[in-house]
Amino acid sequence: MINQNRIKELVKQCTEDMRCARRKLHAYPEISNEEERTAAYMAKTLRSFGVDVQEGVAGGHGVVGTLTGKRPGPTIALRADMDALSITEQTGLLFASQCEGKMHACGHDGHMAILLGAAKVLSELRDELAGTVVFICQPAEEKSPRGGAKGLVEAGVLDGVDAIYGLHVWPTLPTGTIGVKAGPMMAASDHIRIVIRGKSSHAAMPHKGVDAIVAAGQFITAAQDIISRQINPLYPAVLTFGRISGGTRYNIVAGEVELEGTCRTYHAEAQDMVEAQLGNMLRGLDTMYGTESELHYERGYAAVVNSQRQADFVASVAADCFGRDALADVQEPAMTAEDFSGYLQACDGAFFWLGATKAGDAVYPLHNSRFAVDEDCLPIGAELMASLVCRAMENQ
Amino acid sequence: MINQNRIKELVKQCTEDMRCARRKLHAYPEISNEEERTAAYMAKTLRSFGVDVQEGVAGGHGVVGTLTGKRPGPTIALRADMDALSITEQTGLLFASQCEGKMHACGHDGHMAILLGAAKVLSELRDELAGTVVFICQPAEEKSPRGGAKGLVEAGVLDGVDAIYGLHVWPTLPTGTIGVKAGPMMAASDHIRIVIRGKSSHAAMPHKGVDAIVAAGQFITAAQDIISRQINPLYPAVLTFGRISGGTRYNIVAGEVELEGTCRTYHAEAQDMVEAQLGNMLRGLDTMYGTESELHYERGYAAVVNSQRQADFVASVAADCFGRDALADVQEPAMTAEDFSGYLQACDGAFFWLGATKAGDAVYPLHNSRFAVDEDCLPIGAELMASLVCRAMENQ
Amino acid sequence: MINQNRIKELVKQCTEDMRCARRKLHAYPEISNEEERTAAYMAKTLRSFGVDVQEGVAGGHGVVGTLTGKRPGPTIALRADMDALSITEQTGLLFASQCEGKMHACGHDGHMAILLGAAKVLSELRDELAGTVVFICQPAEEKSPRGGAKGLVEAGVLDGVDAIYGLHVWPTLPTGTIGVKAGPMMAASDHIRIVIRGKSSHAAMPHKGVDAIVAAGQFITAAQDIISRQINPLYPAVLTFGRISGGTRYNIVAGEVELEGTCRTYHAEAQDMVEAQLGNMLRGLDTMYGTESELHYERGYAAVVNSQRQADFVASVAADCFGRDALADVQEPAMTAEDFSGYLQACDGAFFWLGATKAGDAVYPLHNSRFAVDEDCLPIGAELMASLVCRAMENQ
Amino acid sequence: MINQNRIKELVKQCTEDMRCARRKLHAYPEISNEEERTAAYMAKTLRSFGVDVQEGVAGGHGVVGTLTGKRPGPTIALRADMDALSITEQTGLLFASQCEGKMHACGHDGHMAILLGAAKVLSELRDELAGTVVFICQPAEEKSPRGGAKGLVEAGVLDGVDAIYGLHVWPTLPTGTIGVKAGPMMAASDHIRIVIRGKSSHAAMPHKGVDAIVAAGQFITAAQDIISRQINPLYPAVLTFGRISGGTRYNIVAGEVELEGTCRTYHAEAQDMVEAQLGNMLRGLDTMYGTESELHYERGYAAVVNSQRQADFVASVAADCFGRDALADVQEPAMTAEDFSGYLQACDGAFFWLGATKAGDAVYPLHNSRFAVDEDCLPIGAELMASLVCRAMENQ
Repeated sequence: MINQNRIKELVKQCTEDMRCARRKLHAYPEISNEEERTAAYMAKTLRSFGVDVQEGVAGGHGVVGTLTGKRPGPTIALRADMDALSITEQTGLLFASQCEGKMHACGHDGHMAILLGAAKVLSELRDELAGTVVFICQPAEEKSPRGGAKGLVEAGVLDGVDAIYGLHVWPTLPTGTIGVKAGPMMAASDHIRIVIRGKSSHAAMPHKGVDAIVAAGQFITAAQDIISRQINPLYPAVLTFGRISGGTRYNIVAGEVELEGTCRTYHAEAQDMVEAQLGNMLRGLDTMYGTESELHYERGYAAVVNSQRQADFVASVAADCFGRDALADVQEPAMTAEDFSGYLQACDGAFFWLGATKAGDAVYPLHNSRFAVDEDCLPIGAELMASLVCRAMENQ
Repeated sequence: MINQNRIKELVKQCTEDMRCARRKLHAYPEISNEEERTAAYMAKTLRSFGVDVQEGVAGGHGVVGTLTGKRPGPTIALRADMDALSITEQTGLLFASQCEGKMHACGHDGHMAILLGAAKVLSELRDELAGTVVFICQPAEEKSPRGGAKGLVEAGVLDGVDAIYGLHVWPTLPTGTIGVKAGPMMAASDHIRIVIRGKSSHAAMPHKGVDAIVAAGQFITAAQDIISRQINPLYPAVLTFGRISGGTRYNIVAGEVELEGTCRTYHAEAQDMVEAQLGNMLRGLDTMYGTESELHYERGYAAVVNSQRQADFVASVAADCFGRDALADVQEPAMTAEDFSGYLQACDGAFFWLGATKAGDAVYPLHNSRFAVDEDCLPIGAELMASLVCRAMENQ
Repeated sequence: MINQNRIKELVKQCTEDMRCARRKLHAYPEISNEEERTAAYMAKTLRSFGVDVQEGVAGGHGVVGTLTGKRPGPTIALRADMDALSITEQTGLLFASQCEGKMHACGHDGHMAILLGAAKVLSELRDELAGTVVFICQPAEEKSPRGGAKGLVEAGVLDGVDAIYGLHVWPTLPTGTIGVKAGPMMAASDHIRIVIRGKSSHAAMPHKGVDAIVAAGQFITAAQDIISRQINPLYPAVLTFGRISGGTRYNIVAGEVELEGTCRTYHAEAQDMVEAQLGNMLRGLDTMYGTESELHYERGYAAVVNSQRQADFVASVAADCFGRDALADVQEPAMTAEDFSGYLQACDGAFFWLGATKAGDAVYPLHNSRFAVDEDCLPIGAELMASLVCRAMENQ
Repeated sequence: MINQNRIKELVKQCTEDMRCARRKLHAYPEISNEEERTAAYMAKTLRSFGVDVQEGVAGGHGVVGTLTGKRPGPTIALRADMDALSITEQTGLLFASQCEGKMHACGHDGHMAILLGAAKVLSELRDELAGTVVFICQPAEEKSPRGGAKGLVEAGVLDGVDAIYGLHVWPTLPTGTIGVKAGPMMAASDHIRIVIRGKSSHAAMPHKGVDAIVAAGQFITAAQDIISRQINPLYPAVLTFGRISGGTRYNIVAGEVELEGTCRTYHAEAQDMVEAQLGNMLRGLDTMYGTESELHYERGYAAVVNSQRQADFVASVAADCFGRDALADVQEPAMTAEDFSGYLQACDGAFFWLGATKAGDAVYPLHNSRFAVDEDCLPIGAELMASLVCRAMENQ
């Protein structure tokens, strides 16, 4: 069993390098599927640690590194996502984005720095490792519903992998804490577009038309019942129609209404039910009113769900690293989505949140133009990632 | 052309007889399909005028009298309905109902007295009549949806009849006035029963059941759209659900809801549309919610609708009899139903209202336990009925 | 009493002039409140008949002519409206619009020609007239809710007028027929704009916002109940929301929805009820959901409603002119609006429809780019207008 | 630290007594607030173990025993509820209910036997106990919203108590397992009665009335939005109207509708929101329709919610007693209610579920006439209860 203090010491030695890496990555953000320089940097750095690196995985900017321990044992993967967002940075940092209109506003710069830190530590421990580590640098996490995870998994990056771990820097948790729980961590987020087609007529002769606005009103009220009555009340689900538009003139019965919205769920049953019931509701509406409706339901990422066993494992490793008090009380999942679910659907593993706001600092949410990772979270993330690998090898 | 003053004089001679007949009939009310004594009285009296009488028409208490004029000509029918209601009279009249719990609260006593008056007058004019008069004494007008008119028509009482006229005493018009208009006079009135079957479940597990109360709520709101959007706005229609009941306990998802109501219309298109759309709405609801619904739509009497020509004819005869001022300004039909529509569907003719409340008297609506015909309307009704026959014979 | 054949003969003599006037006016359409040349033409022509003419009435293009009969008697007004529409003509007529994008698509060219014909006839009959005739040439009839009638009435054109008559050429009636009825002829037409303000929030956190789209759905369904339950079912009313738009993005709870629509009624009670109930519905909605709603209810023209007496008068004059068969069976009012109601609210009179499509010709509705008056209706309109004046003078 | 094997051995010694106690209690069920003999039996038995017992606590059948350890330390309470249900037993057990129409169908017989077992074990360990144990025998747990817990707490039974533990036998978990989780375990359950008063009128004249059925339909659909939009989607809530009735006759506009239902929540915010929003919805409805509505919202028991710390504590003690595998994977709370929340609102502590169906046996839900505790759960419950007391004393 690898001594925790040994890991802590190794992390300490590479903390400054992590900070530099993070700032360099932060200054040159590249958006989804354009992570060319970023991927090259990750590959080069991993190689410098003696990691075997494969670039251009899955035909894109995927980078996969492999570190083989001295002794045989399980294969454990760590994942960092690499893409930035089309946001104009307003942090005022010295190393702020050099690329107009692009920004690492979702903390992927931190994720990559942490992965590099963990890789450095684990490479130093190679002689003691009983197993193999796989480092996955993923492009296009922000590209729902076609994120990069799916392609990498299909390309076989999880072949032979026993467990995979991922994290997200989390601004609403203070630096020094870890958030992990059994059950859902991140939501499934689906896109919905609905067209309800009626038939135009003179406003004064509604019986000669089919009023798409009245049908839409009825549909909107009926759709609430999916949430209030038709899904398991213990399975959170949100169905929001954020946009509506219909009709052409105030004095013509509207011939068409379009609704656009989103559905967030954490359980496949709830997600399936919402999609199925929206279809039933619209077919029923068509029978009621003589409309012709279309449902375009595009599934985004699945929910990120931890098993009880893996959540307990991450919590116990974190408690060993930083004490019980470092475990944040997280009972509620996030409403946002992550394509880490793509890995967890194919492989054992867990996802957790890493506190990333210095106590007392203003909290800017992810995707905000003022959001920046508190760099003190980098060594914490790296230690936990490296420790998860070591302990997972011992356990299995 | 028969002189109007002649008719007026003959009516005058029989006014006291009409009053007596009306009081006798009022004192011994018989409810629908039990008009035995009433029918016998009508038959006997008509015979006493020299009218050929057939009793037991259509296998019930129908009485049909025939008076053949000296000269050939068209056949014109007059109709009176004979049945009373299950209402306890509270008029305090000396000749009030002698039959506990039964009452002529719809004025059919007046209708019969008027028919007898007209028959007496016309029998006196027989030598001058160019055509035939048919006197129809109908049972069971109050028996919607199976009123007596249908049976009589099926039994052939309108065979060879060129036109039929009927009236209803009308408490909201003052005695001395006549109400007639082209278009609808009386509504079609249908009975509706709907059962929405869901599936019971624990109140806390709605997703395991199908909530019939929520589905019913949606149906009730959707059904309003039939009236507000789907029928011609110029065709009045009312859809009322007067009774709802559903569920068994507050903490069990309701497995069934029953609705009972009525629909009133004046146009066959509107009536057809309401029935058809209720069906569509329920089928759509079933698709939306997974309920199983039943629609029991029982048509009552059709609307009583006058043609422009016949309405103008009645108005002009009435104006000739009583002056233009006797024509009440009636632009709106009644919401109540009358099975006189059964005759008008088979034959030309018209229906009109006879003012029946003395100026200054309290107005009690039909079917009210205090309603009583103002007897001064009897000679007016008889003169108009007799004149319609005479003029109709001349016209055709 | 002026002999009808005399009138007929005089009409015949000026029929060709009416046709020419109509074609000239048709070729040079001017839209609402820009009727400069049109008004000048009407003034000049009326003056040429010996009519006293006042121009620039009510500060615009109103023209009022006065013809004083030899003998004293009542004052009777006739009205024609003068404005064209912003429509590109597609009739292919030789005398089609010379003004790009403007067209007499509502038949006002015919109305003016008829007025001129009637004026010519009446000026010839001046010596026999017992009373005064007022000819009103009205601008801006198409300018709801601020049509020209109101201004003229306020300027006093009806002062001393005992009755006013107006007509509209009516493409769905065949040339040679007249449509007139007691009660509503043309609808009241109001404009409605509603803003429902909620509060935006993340699509996944609806409880932090107020969903304006869900509130709007509930409002739309509730508003149907105004029509189906809250107004007298015998008073036709249509409430149409023709346009809806709300929200900004599919994944943001919508902070605002706008609805635009129209209400058509024939009875002031129904109109008042719809406006009042829309207000109550929105105030209730605000209490239900915490929205803040605005109702902008702009009344357009009032309904055009004929009294029974005046409708009968027009019908009897028309029957005398053209025979009973010329009276079309019109039981239903039009859904469109006319500001002739502005006169009838201030003065006795009537409005009627003049059949304007040659038997067998295609029927193009008013405001259609292919609509053109059948010129055979011009002498019919002129004869009826002139006869109404003559008979009204005799009656009063 | 008291040795676990010692506890296990003591439990073994009293297992047969527990079984006997349970059977005796099962045979003589007493319903809520009538637990006279039951309370006397509990008091007598506790006294036989050397426990100080107070009877008639809170003016009813409450029994509170106190066992003071040799050394000073914290005070830890255990609670069992004593009342049975008005159900006719159908288990066919030899010791089935001797009291017609009454039955221990909710397992309170097991709860009491377990409490006695734990009391016996702890009394044997008295010399080693560093603190005080309080045994609470509560009446009327089934008497929502006025359960027995409130009265006992008000009477001071928790004065000086540092933590309280309670359990419920749980038929859907196999015997040998323990269910415990942080967050909600049992729901808050409230009773709702709503009266919507409109105004009756003739079915054909809805505008003269206020249709309570249409208003109710609108209310039912609007109320769904409380669940779907207005509460935090991560806070489960169920709003069920299980019963509706309204109106008197199919052809009279309904003057009144009554709805009865229930609301289940786990978070005070959600519960408050549902109650407040139902009020807002009804007030808004009254403004919309002119109805007069009443909301009778009666709160039942609050939700039973474990803190993370106490849930972890119970889980770790259970794992020490029976191994990690004994911990059932319970991620979802129950929808049913328990007035143990009355204690947890006043004091630290936790509530857990005790597996109570032998593997392979049919699972009958609580309150079912065939439900019976698997007696093998009794020693497991007693060992866990006794161990919680011992470990809690050591911890604090």
